[in-house]
Amino acid sequence: MEFNLQKSLEVWRNTPDVLDTLLYSVDKEWYENNEGGNSWSPFHIVAHLIVGEKTDWLMRVEIILSDKTDKRFPPFNMEIHIEEAKGKTMAQLLGTFKMLRANNLRKLEAMKLTQADLDKTGIHPEFGRVTLKQHLATWTVHDLGHIAQITRVMSKQYKTEVGPWMEYLPILTR
Amino acid sequence: MEFNLQKSLEVWRNTPDVLDTLLYSVDKEWYENNEGGNSWSPFHIVAHLIVGEKTDWLMRVEIILSDKTDKRFPPFNMEIHIEEAKGKTMAQLLGTFKMLRANNLRKLEAMKLTQADLDKTGIHPEFGRVTLKQHLATWTVHDLGHIAQITRVMSKQYKTEVGPWMEYLPILTR
Repeated sequence: MEFNLQKSLEVWRNTPDVLDTLLYSVDKEWYENNEGGNSWSPFHIVAHLIVGEKTDWLMRVEIILSDKTDKRFPPFNMEIHIEEAKGKTMAQLLGTFKMLRANNLRKLEAMKLTQADLDKTGIHPEFGRVTLKQHLATWTVHDLGHIAQITRVMSKQYKTEVGPWMEYLPILTR
Repeated sequence: MEFNLQKSLEVWRNTPDVLDTLLYSVDKEWYENNEGGNSWSPFHIVAHLIVGEKTDWLMRVEIILSDKTDKRFPPFNMEIHIEEAKGKTMAQLLGTFKMLRANNLRKLEAMKLTQADLDKTGIHPEFGRVTLKQHLATWTVHDLGHIAQITRVMSKQYKTEVGPWMEYLPILTR
């Protein structure tokens, strides 16, 4: 499938509702537990998605489209979601994510991106020159990847409870 | 986490809405494409979930709780979802799944399962003796695993579009 802005918008718009449906009404144990060690709980994954909306995805679009000559992206902070989550409830995090995402999509749509815009570039701290199209495709896959991660972390809470079925459930061993 | 019927009900109840939110309003390309070869598309995964509601999950509960001496489970048909999906739209499959799941949960709740029931057993065609508790934990993980699979298949449609970000997106290489 080639990158298509409308098709990405379909995914971006759905993500807050997918997270609400998965997490809003379930017991804390489903989202406060993790996969062991320093791995992320669904609670922290939602906080990480909030940080992306606040500091990364749309800001990098703005850098790429700006008139400045310096188009280097600031690096993404992979720790600060711990701060973002502190003292919050899941309902608060879900509400914050929904609000930020809606605002960002409104701004993105107001940009009325053209095909020529999609080929414009910025400088990633590790990869060097990347296109707007690659950045937007990544934002889309990033949403889907974290939904998959949330359901994987949830499923692992029953890892020992499934008994011999473990071998038929690849999600439990990833 | 130990198996808990109420906590599993939370997951089972949410799954139809999670699937609706992910799939109902998006372009066909997101759910008719697969991961290559004979792999399953999200369309076929929903059909597979329908087959589970029709022929497997609740029926095995009934076998375990029955008074019959023969408690062997019939094997699960891993091909028949192709028939189930034929000629249907995604909206039809999602509606069918939602209706079947609601009926099955109503029946399951009416059984008022006790702790003693959860330790009762049936005979799996490959694993031999398994408990009701293991079967129900597996049903729960099965839901979550297929949600993860659907988002993985969707994300792979942009596999080449993300460019160098591929290495930061483990979902694309699973």
